[in-house]
Amino acid sequence: MIATASALGRVLAKAIKAPIPLPPFKRSTVDGFAVLAKDTFGASSTLPVYLNLIGEIEMGSRKPPPSLMPTKSIVIHTGGMLPNEADAVVMIEDTQRISENEVEVLKAVAPGENVLLKGEDVNQGDVVIHSGSILRAQEIGGLMALGFVDVEVVKKPRIGILSTGNEVVHPEVDPQLGQVRDVNSYTLSSLIEKAGGEPHRWGIVPDNFEALLGVAKKAHLEDEVVIITAGSSVSVHDLTSNVIEKLGEPGVLVHGVAIKPGRPTILAVADGIPIIGLPGNPVSALLIAKIFVSPLIQHLLGIEGAAPEAQLIAKLSINLNSQAGREDYIPVNLVREDDHWIAEPVFGRSNLIFTLVRAGGLIRIPPQVTGLPAGSDVVVELF
Amino acid sequence: MIATASALGRVLAKAIKAPIPLPPFKRSTVDGFAVLAKDTFGASSTLPVYLNLIGEIEMGSRKPPPSLMPTKSIVIHTGGMLPNEADAVVMIEDTQRISENEVEVLKAVAPGENVLLKGEDVNQGDVVIHSGSILRAQEIGGLMALGFVDVEVVKKPRIGILSTGNEVVHPEVDPQLGQVRDVNSYTLSSLIEKAGGEPHRWGIVPDNFEALLGVAKKAHLEDEVVIITAGSSVSVHDLTSNVIEKLGEPGVLVHGVAIKPGRPTILAVADGIPIIGLPGNPVSALLIAKIFVSPLIQHLLGIEGAAPEAQLIAKLSINLNSQAGREDYIPVNLVREDDHWIAEPVFGRSNLIFTLVRAGGLIRIPPQVTGLPAGSDVVVELF
Repeated sequence: MIATASALGRVLAKAIKAPIPLPPFKRSTVDGFAVLAKDTFGASSTLPVYLNLIGEIEMGSRKPPPSLMPTKSIVIHTGGMLPNEADAVVMIEDTQRISENEVEVLKAVAPGENVLLKGEDVNQGDVVIHSGSILRAQEIGGLMALGFVDVEVVKKPRIGILSTGNEVVHPEVDPQLGQVRDVNSYTLSSLIEKAGGEPHRWGIVPDNFEALLGVAKKAHLEDEVVIITAGSSVSVHDLTSNVIEKLGEPGVLVHGVAIKPGRPTILAVADGIPIIGLPGNPVSALLIAKIFVSPLIQHLLGIEGAAPEAQLIAKLSINLNSQAGREDYIPVNLVREDDHWIAEPVFGRSNLIFTLVRAGGLIRIPPQVTGLPAGSDVVVELF
Repeated sequence: MIATASALGRVLAKAIKAPIPLPPFKRSTVDGFAVLAKDTFGASSTLPVYLNLIGEIEMGSRKPPPSLMPTKSIVIHTGGMLPNEADAVVMIEDTQRISENEVEVLKAVAPGENVLLKGEDVNQGDVVIHSGSILRAQEIGGLMALGFVDVEVVKKPRIGILSTGNEVVHPEVDPQLGQVRDVNSYTLSSLIEKAGGEPHRWGIVPDNFEALLGVAKKAHLEDEVVIITAGSSVSVHDLTSNVIEKLGEPGVLVHGVAIKPGRPTILAVADGIPIIGLPGNPVSALLIAKIFVSPLIQHLLGIEGAAPEAQLIAKLSINLNSQAGREDYIPVNLVREDDHWIAEPVFGRSNLIFTLVRAGGLIRIPPQVTGLPAGSDVVVELF
């Protein structure tokens, strides 16, 4: 349960039913005169109708508006509450005030004209926001309109991140010879945050079975998903899968995927907790997390169905080759030319994080395609 | 200056120069044997080359790797630091270990093969992230790789929000006869938050000149932009523009825009502070804020140029008419059909916030277009 005012982007845990109708009463949509529509029939600028003025409906007065008898009218403002009997409002622009007590109506109004009916937006008892909905500006506003100043949202799934590598040091540390700073803990935290999860960094774990198993067991107890980013080397990779096998049943389901970059990916489940072994290369780790971790978080949040996704279509600047049977992801830089975008592949090995800094998006070459010619239209997934 | 780990989505205030090269040293991209490439020339499985093994480069050892003389090699792991003299790495898969001290090389390697050069990602002194960049996962990772654990970001511009209306009450309050709850303060806060600004709610101000001027003056002093959402009625609208004229020079620049919904919009500047008068109807207020307030926040954040925007193309379900000379925005519900999306206009007057709750996006009909036929392709801006 959190304050609705801070709930932007969160996921609704329980469907919201309207406790009151909206609008809660019959309202005017204009400044003018509340009337009985039939009293204005035939009115025109050449043949006006004259109505007796019985007062003014003050905004927010809390008093019920006075009754409106035939041939009478009353001053009303935009949003004001109509008298029970009134069924239309004549706009002030279509009238001429004759005196304190009389108004000339220069245009007929139909019943319902310039009026919002009680319940026209939502009826009392209607389900107005479904559970699993992402709360956008309009849902926040709708909740406030109904008086829900607090709202029950889905808890952010906590995603454990373990970085391994004897050569990896905390970013605060000055790396010594042969050492590099941890990148994956932070790129993955950002991705998790963006997908709606809560990153839980376990820090850097040495490349040995006992140390990794010890931390992985703690993460398995505390987190809803565990991510282990290992070096992509053969030896270290085996270490990760051996540790995962000790965490629970059924263990490793997939060891290696036909995706470039990111081949040495591990997908596993240990006693109901998804465990994902990511390559150690920062580019591969981030791309594979985008493919597997983001949808997993969406699923844990209870977001139903695939949301419509916007696409950017660009023209490929050069020929690209791809191996059949493998899915390729290629970072691209986007350059505007005349009325379209050009996608320029950013080449760089998957070890180089700044390759992605130079890229505005990704293109995907599906397994059955062996290449894309220069000038072809490609779908770019924006970062 | 904030922690880089919490800087996702913020805007970089000053360009980042690399204080070190990345990688900081020559690294192996595979598990194998560091060699002098020329020693392997001509090697094949039928005619292997034999190299003397002089040891192993341990990960994170902090000691400089030993020198490598011709015909010698050394065990290296992925990410390991190459000896100065080594210019290639033979993958473990392309070797056969003969003994403790000897390895058989079954495949020749070219100079640079399986090696990341020092500075191959970024050189020392390179500008690697420009000021005005939005920090994504990869920028966060890149900053960490370079040791920037804190980063200077642009302060979120503070946007004052004043809601007016004698009939408007705080969402916590049970509305009495003729009263409605405040919606605009919260929909606008959400929009501002999403655009990268900091909403500053001044609450509900009564519909009178002195009260509104008093609060507007305070907001004008404290905030970088002031938004006043008024009733869209003629009388209240004049109140807003009269108040704006008292705040500073030059005052009101635009009074009314050719956009539906949202005609009674005010654009003003008072002594350098942009002031925007929005219609009181929640739908109009949110759409107009999307058109005018979001780009203003982007500008204040120093985000340069228009970012590539993804689009969703859908087929319009029905004919839509539009008045020439006016820009129309129509909320649409998106329904998947076979391989494409159908955009179904959601009709509802601009007073009804739940119209937008039922909508997944917006379509825009430009001023020169008088209508769109059913079945035509339309660009949907997703919410």
